Amino acid sequence: MARPSSDLDAGRAHLLDLVEDLIRKRGAASVSLAELAAEAGMSPANIYRFFENKEALYEAVAERWFAPKVRVMEEVVESDEPVRDKLFAFFARRFQLMSDNYLADPTLFTSYLDLGDDHEETVRGYIDLGDHYLAMLVSEAQAAGNFSGLTIDQTVSLINLSVLAFINPRLIPMLSHSLNEAKLRQIIDALLEGLKVRPETAMQARLVAV
Amino acid sequence: MARPSSDLDAGRAHLLDLVEDLIRKRGAASVSLAELAAEAGMSPANIYRFFENKEALYEAVAERWFAPKVRVMEEVVESDEPVRDKLFAFFARRFQLMSDNYLADPTLFTSYLDLGDDHEETVRGYIDLGDHYLAMLVSEAQAAGNFSGLTIDQTVSLINLSVLAFINPRLIPMLSHSLNEAKLRQIIDALLEGLKVRPETAMQARLVAV
Repeated sequence: MARPSSDLDAGRAHLLDLVEDLIRKRGAASVSLAELAAEAGMSPANIYRFFENKEALYEAVAERWFAPKVRVMEEVVESDEPVRDKLFAFFARRFQLMSDNYLADPTLFTSYLDLGDDHEETVRGYIDLGDHYLAMLVSEAQAAGNFSGLTIDQTVSLINLSVLAFINPRLIPMLSHSLNEAKLRQIIDALLEGLKVRPETAMQARLVAV
Repeated sequence: MARPSSDLDAGRAHLLDLVEDLIRKRGAASVSLAELAAEAGMSPANIYRFFENKEALYEAVAERWFAPKVRVMEEVVESDEPVRDKLFAFFARRFQLMSDNYLADPTLFTSYLDLGDDHEETVRGYIDLGDHYLAMLVSEAQAAGNFSGLTIDQTVSLINLSVLAFINPRLIPMLSHSLNEAKLRQIIDALLEGLKVRPETAMQARLVAV
C-alpha cells in the first residue's frame, strides 16, 4: 500500500533527525539502515519504504546539509545587486552559514565533514553545482569588463583558490579566528580589479629563479 | 670531557637521521630520547650530550625541516629582482619544496605535519619568521605604489589568506592536482594590482544582504 508522499516526507524527515542524533552520539561511524530502524522502533523491512538503501539515506543527509547553501547561491545569482556585491555575498553568506553550523556544534560539524569524505561523489555533485553558479557570476562580471582574457573556467578556479579559506569547511575550525567579512571583501575586490591576463603573463608564468 | 662542537654537530645530524627513520616507521607517535638512544646503540646518559631534553630534540627536527624554506625566504628577500617577481618566488619556491617533500614520501610528509601539530609553539616561530620576511616584501611593494591604504600587517594577512592553498602544507595532498605556478602568478598579480583600500570599502565591508 503506497503512502501519500507527505507521509513519506514526514517519515523521512523524522528519520533524518534520528540519523543526526546517531552521528552526534557516535561520530562519523557509518550508520546502517538496520541500526536506524532499531533507533526508530521500526522493522528493517519498513525502513526501506523511506530509504531504499544506505546510499539513498546518505544522499538525503547530504541534501539536508547542503540545502541552505544551495538556497543562498540561487538567491544571490538571481538578485539584481551589482555583480561586485553578488560575488561577495555568494561567499560571505555561505561562510556565515558554515561558521554558524560549526559554532552551534563543533563535533557534529566535524562528523558531517568526515561523512562527506566517505561519500565523495555525492559531495562532488554539490561542489560542481557551486562552480556552476559561480560561473554565472563570472560571466556577468566579464560582461561588466572584469577578468579580461581569462576563460570562465580559469576564473572560477582562480577565485575558488583565492577564497579557499572561506569555502573549505575543514579550514573553518583552524582559521575562524583570523577570518572576517572585511577580509573577504578586500580579496573579492582585489580579484575583480586585478585578475586578468596581462601581455607579459604567459612569459612569466614559469618558476622565477630569483 | 667536552667534545669539540663539530663532533657534537655530526652526532646530532646522525641522531636526526635516526629520528627521521623512526618517524617514517612509526608515524607521528612521539619518539622518546630513551628509544632514540637504544636505536643509536647509545646509553641514555650519553644522548643527553646531544639533546638536553625531548623538546630540544623536536626543535632540532623542526629546524632541519624548515631550514631549506628559511633559506629560500632569505634569498628572495635579499635578491635584486622586481618586487613582483620576488613576491611570486617567495611563495612559488617554498610551494615547490613542499610539493617535492610530499611526493618524495607522502607518509613521512604527513607524519611531520602531525608532529608539528604536537609542537605548535615551535612551528609558530617559523610562521612568524615567514610573516616577518613577507612584511619586508610588502613594504618594498608599498614603496612601489602597491597595497595603498592598507597597513603592512593587513596586507600580510590578506596575502597569506589568498595564497593559503600554496602555503598550508596540510592542503598539498588534497589540492596538488589543481595547483600550479601559473595560477599562483595570476593570484599574486591580482593582489599587487587590486589589493588596496577603496573609498567605499569601509562602508561595504558589512554583510551584504543580497
